Amino acid sequence: MKKPDAVSSVDRPGTRKQRTGRPFDHSSDRLILASTLDLLAERGYERLTLDEVALLTGKAKSTLYRRWATKEELVLAAIRSVGRPPEIDHLPDLGSLRSDLLAVVDSPWLGSPDRRLAIFAGLTSATRSSERLANVVRTEVTEPYVEVYRRLLNRAANKGEIPADYVAGIPILANVIPAMSTHRLDTSRTPVHRDFFVSVIDNILLAALHMQAD
Amino acid sequence: MKKPDAVSSVDRPGTRKQRTGRPFDHSSDRLILASTLDLLAERGYERLTLDEVALLTGKAKSTLYRRWATKEELVLAAIRSVGRPPEIDHLPDLGSLRSDLLAVVDSPWLGSPDRRLAIFAGLTSATRSSERLANVVRTEVTEPYVEVYRRLLNRAANKGEIPADYVAGIPILANVIPAMSTHRLDTSRTPVHRDFFVSVIDNILLAALHMQAD
Repeated sequence: MKKPDAVSSVDRPGTRKQRTGRPFDHSSDRLILASTLDLLAERGYERLTLDEVALLTGKAKSTLYRRWATKEELVLAAIRSVGRPPEIDHLPDLGSLRSDLLAVVDSPWLGSPDRRLAIFAGLTSATRSSERLANVVRTEVTEPYVEVYRRLLNRAANKGEIPADYVAGIPILANVIPAMSTHRLDTSRTPVHRDFFVSVIDNILLAALHMQAD
Repeated sequence: MKKPDAVSSVDRPGTRKQRTGRPFDHSSDRLILASTLDLLAERGYERLTLDEVALLTGKAKSTLYRRWATKEELVLAAIRSVGRPPEIDHLPDLGSLRSDLLAVVDSPWLGSPDRRLAIFAGLTSATRSSERLANVVRTEVTEPYVEVYRRLLNRAANKGEIPADYVAGIPILANVIPAMSTHRLDTSRTPVHRDFFVSVIDNILLAALHMQAD
């Protein structure tokens, strides 16, 4: 692991943290939270330590603890820092349901599909250790993705792409990709690759909708 | 909550526990583990306490702690006590894939479908607090169910019930019911009822296999 360019550890005035009243350099939050996600992706929640985040970012451990009292707090902040999947505001529209579903899988959000899937694997491991983290992953990641898929399926139905007999299945089918993704991480603990999502889309989702692959 | 008939709290000789060397009445294990599952079903892992298990079974708390040092140990023992789903050794064979899938959903295993589903909800909450519990739930519950569904689907394929074009989807489709069940518990935290499984079977599984509901 490479240590990034040194970050100033001098606290700046005027950015006071409520809890302690001691100054903290908020400008380095982004680096710290991104590094937290990198470590979470690399080794999972159990093996993530504040020491390593400090090492990776060039910050003093005490500085990190002053801002985030526990590993749980740091990871919560990291999850919240990424926001919701951008597809929820900008649905892909590539001309077919399958292309649009694959565009979500292939999204560059969070750097690249590989980094994003590794982060999601780390987040799944975090939900094993903390009910709070499980709740935040649910509301910030899982449920927004269900909403993205629901919108894509409803739009395809409105355009007449989905045979009428299968439209009733949309509400439950919108859950299939997130459900299978979590299940896959729970049961095999190895990275999920694009092939897995292609199989879920073709063998489950489009097959259940009686839509042929392009 | 009703307190059951008093259970003898006199430890009997000849059933010594390895860890402490103090005698323990193993004959009451079954009652304690069943009561643990009842409480897990009723309130989830976080709110389960050894005190309540003691109260419910008429055992001294110290007696419980002597046998299971932590709540995690007690719940691990409770999970292991139930064994794997009996369907793995005795596949239902009711004449159609749909009937056989519903027979697994309607299985009287663990008392009744309602008690079983409530216990599974409690187990899902337990996987939020302990990696060890998550691993045991995976190997003792989730994976055996995937195997039951895989066998049912393969048998239906061998009997020619599944159109040839969709047989390739079986390995991934065998995961759909366990994946959707866990996802449902993760996202809504309310009891899962039979209707949900019927919808998963009809709108996802049988639809993806291009098989009509009976």
